Amino acid sequence: MPKVGIVLSGSGYLDGAEIQESVLTMLALDRAGAEMIYMAPDIDQLHVVNHQTGKEVEGASRNVLVESARITRGNVHAIGTINSDDLDALIFPGGFGVAKNLCDYAMVGADCQVDPVIENLAIKMHNAGKPIGVMCIAPAMMARILGNQGLKSDLTIGSDEGTANDINTMGGNHITCSVREIVVDKENKVVSTPAYMEAQCISEAADGIEKLVSEVLALI
Amino acid sequence: MPKVGIVLSGSGYLDGAEIQESVLTMLALDRAGAEMIYMAPDIDQLHVVNHQTGKEVEGASRNVLVESARITRGNVHAIGTINSDDLDALIFPGGFGVAKNLCDYAMVGADCQVDPVIENLAIKMHNAGKPIGVMCIAPAMMARILGNQGLKSDLTIGSDEGTANDINTMGGNHITCSVREIVVDKENKVVSTPAYMEAQCISEAADGIEKLVSEVLALI
Repeated sequence: MPKVGIVLSGSGYLDGAEIQESVLTMLALDRAGAEMIYMAPDIDQLHVVNHQTGKEVEGASRNVLVESARITRGNVHAIGTINSDDLDALIFPGGFGVAKNLCDYAMVGADCQVDPVIENLAIKMHNAGKPIGVMCIAPAMMARILGNQGLKSDLTIGSDEGTANDINTMGGNHITCSVREIVVDKENKVVSTPAYMEAQCISEAADGIEKLVSEVLALI
Repeated sequence: MPKVGIVLSGSGYLDGAEIQESVLTMLALDRAGAEMIYMAPDIDQLHVVNHQTGKEVEGASRNVLVESARITRGNVHAIGTINSDDLDALIFPGGFGVAKNLCDYAMVGADCQVDPVIENLAIKMHNAGKPIGVMCIAPAMMARILGNQGLKSDLTIGSDEGTANDINTMGGNHITCSVREIVVDKENKVVSTPAYMEAQCISEAADGIEKLVSEVLALI
């Protein structure tokens, strides 16, 4: 039974992890017989957004780890306590939480920095030849992580020109991809899919995520 | 394209809607080609629970409608604005939110009262011969709603004896059911599945929810 780490960044796409992408990832992994290890940073979110209005809630504060536990029904590990030796693969669902809580891409773009604990875990996984799956905006963070190592990885966020350019600026090789498909970098063992960077409905995101999970497991 | 209302009760199974059940319902409906209309009461949650510790957060307050929008990426209607004439079917995902925010079953058991707006919508749907799907703890609320009309409906929450007895006390007919299966009351057009009342993993809940959605659509 392969052990797959899922890195969450809160609960709700405007200030945390994209909930639907997270659940679809869990469903595909569970149906494939994988064991899931949930993790998230034990830090405050950048901010809290009212998902009904889209507006920031002034003065509100929520913890990324605590909110992530809403998706998983508890049982989320503080990411610093997880050792790459205990994982066979790693998957990052998307949502603005990736670009606001795991790194600062939402604020500074291609000059972004990644939370050192997350960057360290991802590099250790890569160096051990273990596959990493990234969806939605997470491929931008992965371009930064791999680019910092001088690695040029094939990645997709779909077709958004600005984000695609940023990925190339950070050292990645962006490949345009439709929402139900994936881009596979076999050499670096990185798999990506656009998910809600492109999806107009949940089944579009699900098709790409199911392919991503299948390919990540095949690369173990 | 059938129009199916999904009634949410927050976001997180300890104080709101069960997130995984909600997303699995959306996925099954979308793949079946249904149009989804999301709705939730515009009220404060009973309370806020830290899902990492399971403990209540003293002094915290969240709105059911606003939190529900995290699951659906916005676009949730205040339930009082929805007319049963605009729906072909209605589905209630579970989670403690059903028993805490939509009715008071979690506090008072079989003597519970249901939010009048929700009870009214469910009765209008039933009287119009439109199917209703209920999962997890929502069948207990449905027993109260139908029992108040003198209707005895076949329902399941799985095998939990206390809840099953309550369903019978409220006028329902509880039928024991395994997690991957459904109970169908063709006369009353009510479909139920245990979901996370029984599920040990997401794929178990998914199998039952997919069958529930399929049967609800078949009953339209």
